[in-house]
Amino acid sequence: MTFASDNWAGASDHVMAVLGEANNGQAAAYGDDGWTARAKAAICDWFERDCAVFFVSTGSAANAIALATLGRPGGVVFAHVDAHITCDEAGGPLLFFPGTQLELVDGPEGRLAPQALKDRLASYLPISVHHGRPTVVSITNLNEIGRCSTPAQVNEISALAKEHGCAVHMDGARFANAVAHLGASPADLSWRAGVDALSLGLTKTGGWCAEAVVFFDRAVEEDAMFRHKQAAQLFSKNRFAAAQFVALLGEDHALSMARSANAAAGSVADILAASPFASLLHRPQGNEVFAYLSAAAQESLRQDEIVAAPWSSRSAHLPAPPQADWSLMRFVASFRTTQEDIRSVETALSRCQSAPVARAV
Amino acid sequence: MTFASDNWAGASDHVMAVLGEANNGQAAAYGDDGWTARAKAAICDWFERDCAVFFVSTGSAANAIALATLGRPGGVVFAHVDAHITCDEAGGPLLFFPGTQLELVDGPEGRLAPQALKDRLASYLPISVHHGRPTVVSITNLNEIGRCSTPAQVNEISALAKEHGCAVHMDGARFANAVAHLGASPADLSWRAGVDALSLGLTKTGGWCAEAVVFFDRAVEEDAMFRHKQAAQLFSKNRFAAAQFVALLGEDHALSMARSANAAAGSVADILAASPFASLLHRPQGNEVFAYLSAAAQESLRQDEIVAAPWSSRSAHLPAPPQADWSLMRFVASFRTTQEDIRSVETALSRCQSAPVARAV
Amino acid sequence: MTFASDNWAGASDHVMAVLGEANNGQAAAYGDDGWTARAKAAICDWFERDCAVFFVSTGSAANAIALATLGRPGGVVFAHVDAHITCDEAGGPLLFFPGTQLELVDGPEGRLAPQALKDRLASYLPISVHHGRPTVVSITNLNEIGRCSTPAQVNEISALAKEHGCAVHMDGARFANAVAHLGASPADLSWRAGVDALSLGLTKTGGWCAEAVVFFDRAVEEDAMFRHKQAAQLFSKNRFAAAQFVALLGEDHALSMARSANAAAGSVADILAASPFASLLHRPQGNEVFAYLSAAAQESLRQDEIVAAPWSSRSAHLPAPPQADWSLMRFVASFRTTQEDIRSVETALSRCQSAPVARAV
Amino acid sequence: MTFASDNWAGASDHVMAVLGEANNGQAAAYGDDGWTARAKAAICDWFERDCAVFFVSTGSAANAIALATLGRPGGVVFAHVDAHITCDEAGGPLLFFPGTQLELVDGPEGRLAPQALKDRLASYLPISVHHGRPTVVSITNLNEIGRCSTPAQVNEISALAKEHGCAVHMDGARFANAVAHLGASPADLSWRAGVDALSLGLTKTGGWCAEAVVFFDRAVEEDAMFRHKQAAQLFSKNRFAAAQFVALLGEDHALSMARSANAAAGSVADILAASPFASLLHRPQGNEVFAYLSAAAQESLRQDEIVAAPWSSRSAHLPAPPQADWSLMRFVASFRTTQEDIRSVETALSRCQSAPVARAV
Repeated sequence: MTFASDNWAGASDHVMAVLGEANNGQAAAYGDDGWTARAKAAICDWFERDCAVFFVSTGSAANAIALATLGRPGGVVFAHVDAHITCDEAGGPLLFFPGTQLELVDGPEGRLAPQALKDRLASYLPISVHHGRPTVVSITNLNEIGRCSTPAQVNEISALAKEHGCAVHMDGARFANAVAHLGASPADLSWRAGVDALSLGLTKTGGWCAEAVVFFDRAVEEDAMFRHKQAAQLFSKNRFAAAQFVALLGEDHALSMARSANAAAGSVADILAASPFASLLHRPQGNEVFAYLSAAAQESLRQDEIVAAPWSSRSAHLPAPPQADWSLMRFVASFRTTQEDIRSVETALSRCQSAPVARAV
Repeated sequence: MTFASDNWAGASDHVMAVLGEANNGQAAAYGDDGWTARAKAAICDWFERDCAVFFVSTGSAANAIALATLGRPGGVVFAHVDAHITCDEAGGPLLFFPGTQLELVDGPEGRLAPQALKDRLASYLPISVHHGRPTVVSITNLNEIGRCSTPAQVNEISALAKEHGCAVHMDGARFANAVAHLGASPADLSWRAGVDALSLGLTKTGGWCAEAVVFFDRAVEEDAMFRHKQAAQLFSKNRFAAAQFVALLGEDHALSMARSANAAAGSVADILAASPFASLLHRPQGNEVFAYLSAAAQESLRQDEIVAAPWSSRSAHLPAPPQADWSLMRFVASFRTTQEDIRSVETALSRCQSAPVARAV
Repeated sequence: MTFASDNWAGASDHVMAVLGEANNGQAAAYGDDGWTARAKAAICDWFERDCAVFFVSTGSAANAIALATLGRPGGVVFAHVDAHITCDEAGGPLLFFPGTQLELVDGPEGRLAPQALKDRLASYLPISVHHGRPTVVSITNLNEIGRCSTPAQVNEISALAKEHGCAVHMDGARFANAVAHLGASPADLSWRAGVDALSLGLTKTGGWCAEAVVFFDRAVEEDAMFRHKQAAQLFSKNRFAAAQFVALLGEDHALSMARSANAAAGSVADILAASPFASLLHRPQGNEVFAYLSAAAQESLRQDEIVAAPWSSRSAHLPAPPQADWSLMRFVASFRTTQEDIRSVETALSRCQSAPVARAV
Repeated sequence: MTFASDNWAGASDHVMAVLGEANNGQAAAYGDDGWTARAKAAICDWFERDCAVFFVSTGSAANAIALATLGRPGGVVFAHVDAHITCDEAGGPLLFFPGTQLELVDGPEGRLAPQALKDRLASYLPISVHHGRPTVVSITNLNEIGRCSTPAQVNEISALAKEHGCAVHMDGARFANAVAHLGASPADLSWRAGVDALSLGLTKTGGWCAEAVVFFDRAVEEDAMFRHKQAAQLFSKNRFAAAQFVALLGEDHALSMARSANAAAGSVADILAASPFASLLHRPQGNEVFAYLSAAAQESLRQDEIVAAPWSSRSAHLPAPPQADWSLMRFVASFRTTQEDIRSVETALSRCQSAPVARAV
């Protein structure tokens, strides 16, 4: 049983089937094929807008190409202290537009606190050559601590960004989970809320390698095209990437899988909320559940070979653990999470009833 | 009918079947899974050596990571005027170790002429800070004009490189075709001939996205690991890349497909050689055929919807076209090339019997 | 009257005189001249060690070349939240070894708090490809808030750095002021305390453009040489840079000027300490004085055209201002600071006696 | 006696005097001082245009900042095979906008042959993501083989560049010598001939370190400002750089020194032209003389300790040496070249009368 990551699931059967179909015959290389055209059209339809779309191999690549394309010399990118681009990409975002600075901003629930962002942006005024200039604000939705931002929340950040001449990037590695949870349209959650470029990740939602970077203003397309190619991200047999998007965006497949994963996370949250050996950080707004677990609870999970990830955060807003030997764990559900997986958590936690935790008080 | 590129073929049925198998269940992300371990072991077995292996999304990524890892500050990379890294990667190889210079060297048949390379290397002696220093010699095998280099030829270049303190990189986008043609072992054609890093591309041989960079000296592994990650090339669901290698290197699958493609290219070459409207550049040594074709022959192919690629070269060693309106075309065979495809070329050319070429004047 | 910066002073008369002398006749370009040899020898003598020395045009260049040379792929550089490389070089340090991450560490008095540094270093263990790896710890001495680190303090940081595989860089834009204050030898304050590379800035001490980067291990010299050249920092008429170092390191000139500047700062501090309208942050340990000044005091200085710089810090360790309308100011003395300059501060502050500040209480 | 390089001369007495004057008192740092304002005004006046001006420490820095600022992602910079940026900057121009490709173009007399440039530019049409896109054409005036380009010649190149969407950069390391030789105005030779950015080097003309990059369209100023700062080229005591420009552009000082150097070169050329042991490449158009010299003549110079630089070129247009043991030498005159220096060449060559060269035939 694993709740380690939605990256541990493979591809959905439907994605595999469409991939098999896409494998028929010969097709032009480097994206000049029919599947790529269909995938781009599907993405534009989904967003109700003519977009510039580039398929890439990883979410990090999407982030890097987005940030580089939106960047300008001397640029400063603002992101949350726990953002993937700041913690988990080993400096990659700093490689593709060398000289770009990352400025970390804190805020509760994995979101940039608007006031904190405003203060940091204002600290660059008046523009001084010594400090660089704000160029991009990057947010994540569904974010790293499992919270959604609503269109209104996204828009609040975008408005601040634009007041200071910044473009807005959204890391959407779990974008489908956010869309599914909020019931908002992809357009409402992106360009209509001021997002200029989106890293659209559907790998976690059921693809093998279904990542794209989407620019909502086609004026940047030629620059982005060269950045994408130089980044060594132009697949030769691009139809394999495109076919996944065709499969995932057709017939509501991605959203239906996201809803299923979100529901599974909700069930896990119910179980954790009911246990005295766990303390839920918050009700899930997607497919991730964060909770403090007692050492006994963690040991119990281990005994049953249930994998969840220890989690660390640099945010000052994270609530303290309820007791000294409790620590933060992340449970991620995917389209492959089964009822049996969920029940296994319940079973493991139920064995903790006479745990030493209570006695420790 | 297409002979445009082996990138136009999809994945082999066997690759698809193994991919389906690999899709079962959950597996650790970012390469910590069993399929990745098996794929790395298969590559090490194939090369009869313990190697550092990184899976990537494109051959360009493999090239870039190899060159960056082998590079040093002030470095100069020597490559053929027609090498893929110099012509077809939009400057990508210059992005990942900024400041690296590319020095173009000519030579017949797509190979670096040893004397020309020697002269260019010597021109950097004594080392001057103004000019940079030789750090890497990059060769391609099977090369861009379809020629193999034998282990002895590779070794001649490697010896020159090493005399001047350079590492050796091989772009092996069609490495399997070279191995199949020469009947040499992968080890003989790589590290035993002095190659330090190989871009091992099996996408063209029947994968979807089966690219890896292989370092034969594990001392560089940690550096390469971070370059690979920063380059945004670490797949989250890496088993999909690994499974392709497991499929391709198991049971001789890649070499058997390479042999089939090479044989198809041989048949195309026979047909071209027999036609007065075509002039073969040389007998194929892999799955690519280069020939000058008369305008009439090209028109005939077009009428039959047979796609071959117009080819250009910057080498001074390329023979001149036999007549003014003849131009160079590339025919690439793949595992998907059929007897019908091949016969279609014969049919199209046969219609040119009373060709207007001479009389057209 | 200005206490804005020691960068506002020009060059000392002695430096100008030696520059005049160096201007005689022809001399080989790009550092192959006698003055350059003398300057390098003077630096090696000063540090009692055979060093690799490169002359540069700015302290930022010295920092960038040092960090790039000491760096490795995936590298993380640790520096104080208020360090010049993190705040005042517009991302330059991230340009010369792209992909390098800056990790900010706080600590009182502009120094890295050893425990905070230790925790941050440990947070990268075990090494994970997702986070990068610690490669350099960068400190400043005399630091940005005017504090010296003793050889023992430097050594404490170096030891932590080296336990984690990091090299140590020291930004020595005011190194001479620190040496003068501590009475330590340059060697004790650098390589003997574990420093691997020093940005040796004597511009502020009386040069026009007297900046060098000094590597204490000559093994990195060839790499550094090419990084220096690629950074476009190799002066053609290098003797002009070298002559300044000859002047400054000969006959104790730099240290004597540093002592003079330090003494002037001490006098300013005395005046501020005696005023009820100023609150000294700490006794100066070099040529910089930091103090909270009341609005009235600032107004009084402005009326007398005395320039001091408003100062901001991102350190959580900075004491709060004594009252709401007091703010932090920096006074920097240089070799050009006169007794008249100093008395002018006293005069201006003395006019504040019946200032509204007191009444505000 | 040296004709090795105009970089071997120091600064003119007038420059030293103005530098002394600029050294008075305190002045704002980082270019916010009166001398910097005067220098910028002098440059704008000289070019009869409002320009964006940045002072730098080397011509390579000027080139790198110019090329980076004019660049775009996927960019290709076209330059002569013998251009300084392609041969003598160790890859620096590739560091500041990583991924930029250099495309070498040949042409007689150190100039880009218009037809060759046109062909190379056209080879990128239609724009293909695989090859990159032309972004900048870079020329040198006075160029590396000592030839001037007239305003009409510059304009011919600029027109080609602009037809292909390229900006035009001019490396003006000896711009004053070209202006002096041609009698053209600085404006006619730069922006009125289509130049967008000029590396204006007056170091060789009598400064210590008098280099600037001048953008004729102020729209790029903010980008350039940050590139300049990140490149670590913003001098703290910028008045020392500015004062040199004030000295050099005031009262015709630079041009008068350039005329003097040009005249000296003319005298050397006369001597070489008159000797049977030397073969002038062409009459000088500035302060550089290129000639094939017999081994005997070179030996004779060596005996008299007259230094000239052996020269190598990669241009296919260079005439062959008249005899096997003759090789190409460069003589550079500067404002410091004396009549005695010039006569020494005559004396040395005159000793070759019974040289073995003739007998060798």
